[in-house]
Amino acid sequence: MTLKPEDYAISSNFRHWVGDKAEDYIGPFFFTMEGDDSRTAFRVQEHHCNAHDSLHGGILMALADYTLCLCANGGENESVATVSCNNEFLAPAFKDNLVEGRGELMKRGGSMVFARCELFVDDRVVLTSSAVIKRLRQK
Amino acid sequence: MTLKPEDYAISSNFRHWVGDKAEDYIGPFFFTMEGDDSRTAFRVQEHHCNAHDSLHGGILMALADYTLCLCANGGENESVATVSCNNEFLAPAFKDNLVEGRGELMKRGGSMVFARCELFVDDRVVLTSSAVIKRLRQK
Amino acid sequence: MTLKPEDYAISSNFRHWVGDKAEDYIGPFFFTMEGDDSRTAFRVQEHHCNAHDSLHGGILMALADYTLCLCANGGENESVATVSCNNEFLAPAFKDNLVEGRGELMKRGGSMVFARCELFVDDRVVLTSSAVIKRLRQK
Amino acid sequence: MTLKPEDYAISSNFRHWVGDKAEDYIGPFFFTMEGDDSRTAFRVQEHHCNAHDSLHGGILMALADYTLCLCANGGENESVATVSCNNEFLAPAFKDNLVEGRGELMKRGGSMVFARCELFVDDRVVLTSSAVIKRLRQK
Repeated sequence: MTLKPEDYAISSNFRHWVGDKAEDYIGPFFFTMEGDDSRTAFRVQEHHCNAHDSLHGGILMALADYTLCLCANGGENESVATVSCNNEFLAPAFKDNLVEGRGELMKRGGSMVFARCELFVDDRVVLTSSAVIKRLRQK
Repeated sequence: MTLKPEDYAISSNFRHWVGDKAEDYIGPFFFTMEGDDSRTAFRVQEHHCNAHDSLHGGILMALADYTLCLCANGGENESVATVSCNNEFLAPAFKDNLVEGRGELMKRGGSMVFARCELFVDDRVVLTSSAVIKRLRQK
Repeated sequence: MTLKPEDYAISSNFRHWVGDKAEDYIGPFFFTMEGDDSRTAFRVQEHHCNAHDSLHGGILMALADYTLCLCANGGENESVATVSCNNEFLAPAFKDNLVEGRGELMKRGGSMVFARCELFVDDRVVLTSSAVIKRLRQK
Repeated sequence: MTLKPEDYAISSNFRHWVGDKAEDYIGPFFFTMEGDDSRTAFRVQEHHCNAHDSLHGGILMALADYTLCLCANGGENESVATVSCNNEFLAPAFKDNLVEGRGELMKRGGSMVFARCELFVDDRVVLTSSAVIKRLRQK
């Protein structure tokens, strides 16, 4: 099933990566590619919020992981798996906020990819992350 | 609303931390304290799985964050916020697995807490994490 | 004692931060500020190399820490202390290489600073890092 | 050249891993294995200290890297290279302190090893770290 960004007040420039039930459930998350780098988007709803009424850190890390893995597979169907993911929480995001991600491909090796990203609301960075991602080659 | 661990085939030794909508939505997650350390539990369902039909890394990181923050607030109502959270993915977890967490308080300072945890399925570690967590004191 | 970048075949645009015996011993490291961001430089010598005859990872992390802390104190004498530091090793550096650093201030809060950096040789990134740094205020 | 732990007031139960110039220069560091886990030791001298007269964070991270890589190669000569290394700084160490490390092998896979460690002075943990380490197989 393909989800529509417009249903979440997200620009139709973004697309839905089909086939990950968990991302649709936690998010949904949307993306577009700019060369090797990824751009992602997510609209915060009530059920995404924690005891402080701000966006739960686990969901921020899930969006970061999505943003980083798109750098690894280029938005295509290559299978990849996160090996390590580090995150710093700079500021909170709140209900109704549009959280956007900017993923940066640092290196694509034969078996491993290095990427980092930042998530932001307007011009305020809320999370920075970096990851090592394994490429799962077809046998 | 309090959720019951038994409804997820989790031992009734575990409790529900009431008041975090996102954790109930992503999880639900359950916990118990052993002194300063936390024990947590989560049952993997179909909608928690990714394109590889294994538990999504974002949900694993959300459970790690939950496990680590319980070390910071001792399972009580003290408000805490994650500052940094690092994660390594050792092995996958699958649908119907019981994922358990073991959180270890490394240091509780006046303003910051250091904790680390491991998540496991049976005796296989699936994720190791560590975090710096800020204590949000009442003004 | 002030060390001279020229003695290490490093551009005289860089300066020496005086007062850290360990950085002089491990490095020496040199820096310059570009607004809030730091630029750093280090020349790899024989005694900096490991069993693979490449630059030791510990020295790369020490240079990253130096690059990140300069974002926190702005190259001035404010005391700061690293709370967490995460590193990914993308590629090796070798004897006689000039390793340069680019530090990026992500947020300077009242008590904590967030920064990230990359270290590179020519146009090849060798390390990416991020840190949470505490500002140690004068009493 | 083999260095002697006794020359640094370190128990003769520890050994020197021969062949890494940088570790001898930054440290020297010493180790012993307990099954799959590593124990390491380092004596802080004046030239290891920073502007706060405490042990420099870069040297702590170098010792952590040493402690973690020993979990990966088992104290033998297998070549390994750190892919990611995350560190949290819990407390300072000072001149003349004996800093000890406890490395824990979390998983040894065919191509990657996961390990974590803590460094401590007496019974005070000063650093916690975790790493992903690549096994460099002989061709």
